[in-house]
Amino acid sequence: MTDFSRTRALFDLPEGVIYLDGNSLGPMPKAALARAGRTIADEWGQMLIRGWNQAGWMQMPGSLGDRIGRLIGAAPGSTVVGDTLSIKVYQALASALDLNPSRKVVLSDNGNFPSDLYMADGLLKSLGRGLELKVVEPEAVADAIDETVAVVMLTEADYRTGRLHDMKAITAKAHAAGAVMIWDLAHSAGAFPVDLAGSNAEFAVGCTYKYLNGGPGAPAFIYVRPDIQDRVRPALSGWLGHAAPFAFDLDYRPGSGVERMRVGTPPVIQMAVLEASLDIWDGVDMQALRRRSIELSERFIAEVEAGTKDVTLASPRDPNARGSQVSFRFADGYAAMQALIARGIIGDFRAPDIMRFGFCPLYNTDEEVSAAAAALVEIVSTGAWNRPEFLARKAVT
Amino acid sequence: MTDFSRTRALFDLPEGVIYLDGNSLGPMPKAALARAGRTIADEWGQMLIRGWNQAGWMQMPGSLGDRIGRLIGAAPGSTVVGDTLSIKVYQALASALDLNPSRKVVLSDNGNFPSDLYMADGLLKSLGRGLELKVVEPEAVADAIDETVAVVMLTEADYRTGRLHDMKAITAKAHAAGAVMIWDLAHSAGAFPVDLAGSNAEFAVGCTYKYLNGGPGAPAFIYVRPDIQDRVRPALSGWLGHAAPFAFDLDYRPGSGVERMRVGTPPVIQMAVLEASLDIWDGVDMQALRRRSIELSERFIAEVEAGTKDVTLASPRDPNARGSQVSFRFADGYAAMQALIARGIIGDFRAPDIMRFGFCPLYNTDEEVSAAAAALVEIVSTGAWNRPEFLARKAVT
Repeated sequence: MTDFSRTRALFDLPEGVIYLDGNSLGPMPKAALARAGRTIADEWGQMLIRGWNQAGWMQMPGSLGDRIGRLIGAAPGSTVVGDTLSIKVYQALASALDLNPSRKVVLSDNGNFPSDLYMADGLLKSLGRGLELKVVEPEAVADAIDETVAVVMLTEADYRTGRLHDMKAITAKAHAAGAVMIWDLAHSAGAFPVDLAGSNAEFAVGCTYKYLNGGPGAPAFIYVRPDIQDRVRPALSGWLGHAAPFAFDLDYRPGSGVERMRVGTPPVIQMAVLEASLDIWDGVDMQALRRRSIELSERFIAEVEAGTKDVTLASPRDPNARGSQVSFRFADGYAAMQALIARGIIGDFRAPDIMRFGFCPLYNTDEEVSAAAAALVEIVSTGAWNRPEFLARKAVT
Repeated sequence: MTDFSRTRALFDLPEGVIYLDGNSLGPMPKAALARAGRTIADEWGQMLIRGWNQAGWMQMPGSLGDRIGRLIGAAPGSTVVGDTLSIKVYQALASALDLNPSRKVVLSDNGNFPSDLYMADGLLKSLGRGLELKVVEPEAVADAIDETVAVVMLTEADYRTGRLHDMKAITAKAHAAGAVMIWDLAHSAGAFPVDLAGSNAEFAVGCTYKYLNGGPGAPAFIYVRPDIQDRVRPALSGWLGHAAPFAFDLDYRPGSGVERMRVGTPPVIQMAVLEASLDIWDGVDMQALRRRSIELSERFIAEVEAGTKDVTLASPRDPNARGSQVSFRFADGYAAMQALIARGIIGDFRAPDIMRFGFCPLYNTDEEVSAAAAALVEIVSTGAWNRPEFLARKAVT
């Protein structure tokens, strides 16, 4: 049994705040400060350059990757940490296209995170040779997979609604059509169990600052299926993915396994903070996490819908078809979210009308969920959102 | 006048260590720990997702870029921080090739940092279309610039010897031949004054963990000449380089100016530490830094050469022709460096035989330089390096 009151006690949550935005940026583990302090003062400060060996900085991308691997169903040696999710998307797509050089179409959907589509667009424009990014509705993906498709690139959980793709079925369909599969797990890793190995997908990527609570700007991760690792050509062929980085050869020779997906010098201090956050995940049973996540989200939906007809559920009603978030549509959703935030209840807003609430069993409680539901009901029912300070939009939301 | 005893007092250097490896990883500014703590506990911990606005995280890549800009002769609005140097090399080269689409040759030299060559190789392999990476001796670069060259890509200060290229002359030659110029300033930024605007180069890149003391894994920077910024197509077209990242459009539209070279979510905690290190640079006169750097390196060379004939100067003898490091060749340089490190004198070794010493006026003193020279003389003269514990090589050096 996973004791979620134990895990909650490991986070520092501000007084008076109900935090339902861990799907944008997870909160701070109490151990993060001391862990960063150790890396800064004891390792960097005292070991200086020797920290790369003595403190094991050089091995962290692989060891952190393996710890994330457990949460997403990836075998040890198949996941490595570094860079940002956008960069990892680029790496995965470039390598995937290389594995399928005769085809021209990259298939994605409009529920994919925009940066994934932007990175694909940039890569395809660079490569030229008639490559094409085809973006369909999420529901149309399966039917759009055909013999023209080189790569299918999707985010498992839609960032707007939490709607889940069926990883296993879509991957099987992609493979049957001869396409390579890439999954973005940004809203999956740490949100619910993922069976990456079972899906048989060639590549997966994700970030660690959402459900994994790695902190602002925490590095991303990339997974490469073990049997193809040594066939994958790294398009971003940096020295730390080289077979012998410190030989300073003039020619690139890719390192073995997933290590070749490393690029430049890894962000040691961010990795230290991520390590503190991954400590919390040790011993968390992912099935128990999923059950608890569904309890929280079902409670939220039931209490909101019992209180108001003014908002419309944007997430799938079937909990098995959504991730660990619930979104409601409300025409003045931006202002309503500002009104909630003014009361210390933090979710977020995605244009044009989506109010988004993330549920994280590691720290969210039933009482928080009920208080958030009651506040949302009150705000939309009474028009409490209709005030100038809530209506004014900031540049960054 | 810059008071270098004041700046030295701002660093935390371990007792008993003489640190001459700031050209690999600069030491810890005393303010780094508190600055990281503020970002972790007060910003992330208390503001949570609101930190992006309230703590100004979103603006940091530009504001830190401008502060680095002052040190390298770049106008405000032309430098932005993010990712790693390898990624920034890739961005610069991809954009440079786009500006010169009819030519096939990328010219570099074998004094360039290997990762730059690896990244170029990976990019050219991806692009195909007959593109070719031509790597010549550093001395042969100027003569190799001709009408076939699309891009000249060089590191100003050779990481092995500190030998400097003449930025202005080579850039002028590249432009006269119709080529685009990229400078890697990894061993320049914070080492001596750079006149990037005066060189008229289109692109420059660099890292912040060496002479800028930004900490292990600190982010890189990229410069784009102001007049071409809005013509540059970002190959790594991530959402934070988008004109409106939070509109979540499906199509990529590059942001204005150098902001379009941003890619994914920036490493907030690493940027906070970098900010603490850049505070030290405020008020440092770069000409005074250069004079002091030359004093330190000239003292080192003179005292080593007065004491032993067993090592050979690998750096240019003319201080104006080298950066802020001195390298000596010694056949058993690896072991000799280990012997120095065992005495608390930290430089580093680069295969096959280069003992490398960086000199940083912000914290290195005359006394340290003399002590290091005396120890080196003694170790090579007496054979003190010839012990099993110094001869055994570790995997990472």
